[in-house]
Amino acid sequence: MEKRLMDKNFNYSSLKLGIIGGGQLGKIMSQKAKKMGFHVTILDPTFNCPAAQVSDKHIMGGFYDKEKLEQLVQESDVTTFELEHVDTSILKELYDNGHNIHPSPYVMELIQNKYEQKKLLDEKGIPVPAYKDVKSEEDLCAFGFPVVQKAKLGGYDGQGVQVLKSLEDVKTKALKTDSFIEEMVDIDKELAIIVARNIEGEIKCYPVVEMLFDERVNICDSVMAPARISKEVEEEAIRVSTESIKALDGVGIFGVELFLTKTGQIQVNEIAPRPHNSGHYTVEACATSQFEQIIRAVTNLPLGSTKLISPAVMVNLLGEEGYEGEPFIDGIHDALEIPELSFHFYGKSFTKPFRKMGHITVLDDDINVALEKANKAKNILKIKGSKKV
Amino acid sequence: MEKRLMDKNFNYSSLKLGIIGGGQLGKIMSQKAKKMGFHVTILDPTFNCPAAQVSDKHIMGGFYDKEKLEQLVQESDVTTFELEHVDTSILKELYDNGHNIHPSPYVMELIQNKYEQKKLLDEKGIPVPAYKDVKSEEDLCAFGFPVVQKAKLGGYDGQGVQVLKSLEDVKTKALKTDSFIEEMVDIDKELAIIVARNIEGEIKCYPVVEMLFDERVNICDSVMAPARISKEVEEEAIRVSTESIKALDGVGIFGVELFLTKTGQIQVNEIAPRPHNSGHYTVEACATSQFEQIIRAVTNLPLGSTKLISPAVMVNLLGEEGYEGEPFIDGIHDALEIPELSFHFYGKSFTKPFRKMGHITVLDDDINVALEKANKAKNILKIKGSKKV
Repeated sequence: MEKRLMDKNFNYSSLKLGIIGGGQLGKIMSQKAKKMGFHVTILDPTFNCPAAQVSDKHIMGGFYDKEKLEQLVQESDVTTFELEHVDTSILKELYDNGHNIHPSPYVMELIQNKYEQKKLLDEKGIPVPAYKDVKSEEDLCAFGFPVVQKAKLGGYDGQGVQVLKSLEDVKTKALKTDSFIEEMVDIDKELAIIVARNIEGEIKCYPVVEMLFDERVNICDSVMAPARISKEVEEEAIRVSTESIKALDGVGIFGVELFLTKTGQIQVNEIAPRPHNSGHYTVEACATSQFEQIIRAVTNLPLGSTKLISPAVMVNLLGEEGYEGEPFIDGIHDALEIPELSFHFYGKSFTKPFRKMGHITVLDDDINVALEKANKAKNILKIKGSKKV
Repeated sequence: MEKRLMDKNFNYSSLKLGIIGGGQLGKIMSQKAKKMGFHVTILDPTFNCPAAQVSDKHIMGGFYDKEKLEQLVQESDVTTFELEHVDTSILKELYDNGHNIHPSPYVMELIQNKYEQKKLLDEKGIPVPAYKDVKSEEDLCAFGFPVVQKAKLGGYDGQGVQVLKSLEDVKTKALKTDSFIEEMVDIDKELAIIVARNIEGEIKCYPVVEMLFDERVNICDSVMAPARISKEVEEEAIRVSTESIKALDGVGIFGVELFLTKTGQIQVNEIAPRPHNSGHYTVEACATSQFEQIIRAVTNLPLGSTKLISPAVMVNLLGEEGYEGEPFIDGIHDALEIPELSFHFYGKSFTKPFRKMGHITVLDDDINVALEKANKAKNILKIKGSKKV
């Protein structure tokens, strides 16, 4: 039974989509799938998770629960992902038996391992920072200091990344898990591109954006679309991202994080095989959002236009330091006075410091004005909690 | 207990919204409320209605079921509407006891009666077509022929409207219900404006759009935003619509349907006290959609910008003549190849001729190109059914 290429005579009015993961990415994906009239089932361990609130069905189960993963795939015409940390063994078995799972569990498995991911890109001639497998304490020192140590598996939002500044750090702060080191790149800007690839191999890139980080915790703070870069840098970023996704051979949406070095070179930092924080702005600013695009890609529908309709700045709303518990949105009235501002709140029942609780996207014909408006909103909006910590 | 002005210190992260009606309008409203993190309960008699599929809770009950209406209002911090045909007696009682219901049931009651609506507008000096209450067969003939007869209550989508062309028609085709007549206006274009008004009385207008009708059934077929009209006509349309909503004193979103006569005059046809088919385009084309705007208005949040980000054409996808039963979306692959096209399908389990099953919105910098693209899609997309009728 070869089901992987969904038949074009399929009745889309009864299409059943499965999404592994029920956070904010799954929530917006589900809303876009529901916009197109599809039936959506979410797999997530958390009762009343954001995506479950807007979907038809919720299978409560963890991402390493083989039985629940199999149930989801069996009940769905197509299964996709909002996260990459998931058991791939049962998914590979189901995929090999002809079930529609995109990106394929083989691609997911490869990307899960940041070292293998980097090695593949490197072997395909795609520029990446110098890196080296770590087998001993000696390996950690091979590039001198400072150096970036990264866990091969399980990292996200600044977790699983450690900067080592000295031999002392190697002794006291080094990650104890399976890891590799990466040269400390002299970064001018961090850029990102959302790339869509459909089942027939068609690729579409979204605009190159600029990611700004909250340095306290290394979490993406805001995103500017388009990035303030030259035409040459833009073209190189698009070329490198396109080649990377071709190398991976995946179907869906990929968030390609890039470094623009001080010497003007583009390097791939890492790739997320799913909608990405740097693509939130596409909901308001592009003809087709990344969340609708992944649905189109995995259901064998034509990819939508990635045209930027308006410049935009997106700002993450992180849980305020010093608070946890039931969230309270401080400043919502003043923030929503700002024109062309779209407010997203994910519906998580519990806030904690730096947790991603929502985001805003601000449009303006002038990207610098959009940035001013977004920064104003960022200073007003505070996600506090019912408890001081 | 005066709750009608929601306290600005209210914790919006736990806001519970109730929506009366679970069709496509309720569905998109709910999706926008969920975007902002609110809890949404739908009241609708139909199992698995479009809005219930994307909301937290579904109370199965009819719009004249006082017990269920009361349950919805009691469980919600704010209650609003996606339709106007609803029992207002229990709602007035609850409103008088301090519950947040917007637009108020008094406004809903007034608008339900098209004759009273017209009379109020007329008395406030707003231009409307000549009209006359019908108490006898003689009254039906008072304006000569042809003349438009309208039921005072319960009309929608061409229902409850009858054109009488002769005395013969008066005998054989006249509506038997409580009605009034209206002069047959010599129409150049049918225009519409979505108007938002918040609790503090602030009013914002969306762009003036042009409505095109399917003449077979008098249902809106497509909408062009902006309308192809002169600056003077645009200003008069905005003035008349703003005055109309001031006259009604309602809070929420109002779809104002206008006639542009062949002599260049603007007249109000009728007003819907809820998101309106002519405002679907705002989802993709405006900074704040009409569906998010009503949520902002009724929850005492600032109104969002109504700026047109891109010209747009919306086309309704009506159930194809000759089919009923489980819908089949014919032509979806070819239609979705058209760039800057957004596909909405409501998730109704049953199609029948001319039933509103979905819509598309097409963006383009050039409104005429948008219209071409939309017409191409319209010719490709056919909502067929499992059964020939």
